Amino acid sequence: MNKLILAALAGTLAHALPTSAQTAEKIDAAALAKIRDEGMNRSKVMETAFYLTDVSGPRLANSDGLKRANEWTKKQLTQYGLANANIEPWGDFGRGWDIEKSYVAMTAPYYHTMVGAPKAWTPGTPGALRLPVVVMKAATTEADLDQYKGKLKGKIVVMNVPNPPKNAEGPDLKRYTEEELAKMAEPAAPRPAANTPDEAAMAARRAQAALRTKMTDMLMSEGAAAVLSARGGIYGTFNTTNGAPYAADAKPVLPEIEMTPEDQLRLIRLVEAGIPVEVEMETKTRFQSQDVKGYNVVAEIPGTDRKLKSEVVMLGGHIDSWHAATGATDNAAGVAVMMEAVRILKATGMKPRRTIRIALWGEEEQGLHGSRNYVKNNFGDPATMKLLPAHEKLSAYFNLDNGGGKIRGIYAQGNEAIAPIFAEWLKPLVDLGATTVTLRNTGSTDHIAFDAVGLPGFQFIQDGLDYFPQTHHTNQDTYDRLIADDLKQASVVVASFVYNAAMRDQKLPRKPLPTPVKPAQ
Amino acid sequence: MNKLILAALAGTLAHALPTSAQTAEKIDAAALAKIRDEGMNRSKVMETAFYLTDVSGPRLANSDGLKRANEWTKKQLTQYGLANANIEPWGDFGRGWDIEKSYVAMTAPYYHTMVGAPKAWTPGTPGALRLPVVVMKAATTEADLDQYKGKLKGKIVVMNVPNPPKNAEGPDLKRYTEEELAKMAEPAAPRPAANTPDEAAMAARRAQAALRTKMTDMLMSEGAAAVLSARGGIYGTFNTTNGAPYAADAKPVLPEIEMTPEDQLRLIRLVEAGIPVEVEMETKTRFQSQDVKGYNVVAEIPGTDRKLKSEVVMLGGHIDSWHAATGATDNAAGVAVMMEAVRILKATGMKPRRTIRIALWGEEEQGLHGSRNYVKNNFGDPATMKLLPAHEKLSAYFNLDNGGGKIRGIYAQGNEAIAPIFAEWLKPLVDLGATTVTLRNTGSTDHIAFDAVGLPGFQFIQDGLDYFPQTHHTNQDTYDRLIADDLKQASVVVASFVYNAAMRDQKLPRKPLPTPVKPAQ
Repeated sequence: MNKLILAALAGTLAHALPTSAQTAEKIDAAALAKIRDEGMNRSKVMETAFYLTDVSGPRLANSDGLKRANEWTKKQLTQYGLANANIEPWGDFGRGWDIEKSYVAMTAPYYHTMVGAPKAWTPGTPGALRLPVVVMKAATTEADLDQYKGKLKGKIVVMNVPNPPKNAEGPDLKRYTEEELAKMAEPAAPRPAANTPDEAAMAARRAQAALRTKMTDMLMSEGAAAVLSARGGIYGTFNTTNGAPYAADAKPVLPEIEMTPEDQLRLIRLVEAGIPVEVEMETKTRFQSQDVKGYNVVAEIPGTDRKLKSEVVMLGGHIDSWHAATGATDNAAGVAVMMEAVRILKATGMKPRRTIRIALWGEEEQGLHGSRNYVKNNFGDPATMKLLPAHEKLSAYFNLDNGGGKIRGIYAQGNEAIAPIFAEWLKPLVDLGATTVTLRNTGSTDHIAFDAVGLPGFQFIQDGLDYFPQTHHTNQDTYDRLIADDLKQASVVVASFVYNAAMRDQKLPRKPLPTPVKPAQ
Repeated sequence: MNKLILAALAGTLAHALPTSAQTAEKIDAAALAKIRDEGMNRSKVMETAFYLTDVSGPRLANSDGLKRANEWTKKQLTQYGLANANIEPWGDFGRGWDIEKSYVAMTAPYYHTMVGAPKAWTPGTPGALRLPVVVMKAATTEADLDQYKGKLKGKIVVMNVPNPPKNAEGPDLKRYTEEELAKMAEPAAPRPAANTPDEAAMAARRAQAALRTKMTDMLMSEGAAAVLSARGGIYGTFNTTNGAPYAADAKPVLPEIEMTPEDQLRLIRLVEAGIPVEVEMETKTRFQSQDVKGYNVVAEIPGTDRKLKSEVVMLGGHIDSWHAATGATDNAAGVAVMMEAVRILKATGMKPRRTIRIALWGEEEQGLHGSRNYVKNNFGDPATMKLLPAHEKLSAYFNLDNGGGKIRGIYAQGNEAIAPIFAEWLKPLVDLGATTVTLRNTGSTDHIAFDAVGLPGFQFIQDGLDYFPQTHHTNQDTYDRLIADDLKQASVVVASFVYNAAMRDQKLPRKPLPTPVKPAQ
């Protein structure tokens, strides 16, 4: 659809995609000024971020930290004056898991404390271990695995490091340039025709997965004591992930610590030089299976227009995080901004015509579980495209989950009718740096759950800052990384968008309904 | 002396400071080509760096790690074919100290392993502690201290963080631009007349030091259990230093862990929000007072010219490091390069006219002890300027200790007669990026010990890379930071300079002898 043209908004730096037809969006300048004043001058966003990060702690799916954060946000949203604040189960998730002790050090050839944390859902060690290490290289065939048979019993197994630490290119804090934003606003090149699936590549991936399962089984059956692994990181950071399924009936695995590549590579270099290496480690992890449900936190500012109040504008972000830090940029930042946006709307006494609903999603990091199940429970099932009555009533969902950077615009997610409306909405925000509408899709977060059933779901464009490689899923995703000015700006932009959507005469335009898709196996 | 002019060497990128009088340095192009071939194509510098870092471990003054490194370098230099390799005591240093366990975690309001290490020469904890924390702010008066009386008993005291973590400006790996090098080569502006000492500032510093002593005494007398402190760092790195004197008769202090500012600031924010915080820690440190001597490792390539072999060209760098990492950029890099330079000279069968002597200094980090005492024992005492006979015989000392970056030139240390000689020596190295002679002084490392008694002592100009803020004195100064190409280049440049100095008809020119100076109290 090449009717779209790149047009910098006259007299501004905006990069947007209006159609040639003029839109006539009513903008309530006085209301937006109030929103900006509250958000910039009486912000609570850093205080909110503090409670989400430092006070709640790591917020792994179904962990104690996530429970603390859910309870606190429910209470806080109620204090802001929102109605119907609730911690809603979305269905069955799996086991809860928390770390109670994490210690790992090299004790020979000399003492060196190492930096790491248990992989999620792995068991702890049986007390303190002090054992020799064996290095295991990446296996590409079963024969590669066979060579370790008989050599792993009573050993701590150090896995190879696929990503040695690299120095970051460019500055730590990255922001979009005007040129990059202009490029994003350009009409996308037509996509190449969908290829037939690469059967060979898929088969190779299946074989690799089967080999990994074999390796896990072999580590257990050969009697290895524990595993030390590393996936990447920079200057002492490490990346975290899960080391075992969270399903209540998951097969047992070994205790496993994910570590900095620096510590890991030192062990590997020493072993490869023929120097005996010994590691001391003690981890305790706690599982709970009493409550295997997953939850979202939901609250509302009820609409005030008799006809429109049954319609809903949603905003949200995921509240869960990985476990080695406090998930400040992923995604306490997004939650703090969304909570601040509804706080601003309440504090300024706005009377939205439509109902505004905030949702803080659980279990996003394991596959958008919170949002996908919320959509399925409330709006419709993408597998069948059987829609529920509320599907008709949702105007839009706005999401924030790309780090702590300020908002530079919005991904219109291929919705050509909505792009010129967003362009109009950005006009009063251009001086804050929010300028750009791109038709491009972005993925990997909760608006996808809405998009999948044909509902308008959007993620904002955010400055990247140090999301990659320093903070995303690392042990250094802490409160220290948050920049108050960026979060204030984002709060004002989101509150303005949500307010505009809640006041607009019509619901926002939609893309054609998608055809049913089977979820990926 | 403004006869000096900035002159880019014709047809090159070199920035240098020749006098208007032409120098006539004999350059043995064939020898330099052999040196370069050996250094670039059969380098051992990374292998040497591996043994200094990973295999030896942290090399704190008078630690086990430093002993391992000293023994290994002596053996290795002998294997290279050097004569008279020896681990020479330079005098009394103080106690040896090593870490045997280091564990610290927050256990309330939730569990979080923290990243840190005992400060050097602090005692361990009496077993595992699990205690509430108290935050102590920077005291500027005794009254500030008094408010903590009665509140510290049985507590873990968290000290304020003077340097919160900051994102690095610019790229992680910094290299000199041609413009920066040209600027360095410009004649320095005349120095302002020495001011009378700022008595007020000095008095303030003395008062602050006295207050620190009072605070340390108070922590002991009030019965605090341990101290957690932080001085700076970035993305989970932390800086290390000593937490107690190394003197054998030093007063007792509390166990103290130096930590990442991120971990420290989280504790402080929680306590300041009124949330009770508990910390678990267990450290074991081991002192030894059997051998309180400090040592340097010294070895020679004997000169071959009957008249000149009693004269000496020295090269070196300090081999000790701080204790939370393996001191890769500070200063295994410098030692590896200097060892590689003498290896290259032996491997290429060079027959230097003068004797070449390598010295790997101990106890630099505590105040250039190794080099200062070596100079005092062998060449002269800067306090009296009483000189020993060997003073006359030293041509020059070349040092490397500014991280792992390649050599971009040399600091002539105000020696105007030597600048044009160095400029000639750089000409064959310009294509390697070593281009610049600056008359400027640089300090903070071992060439200063030579300069202080009027001997020509020089530090090379090196690309900064990530020395600041990521690696210098941090827990992330590991082998991973070293770049083979930079170290190979530096080895070739150093070997070339040392060879030129050893072959030159005359010793290198000197500055006028300094007047005796009392060492700083």
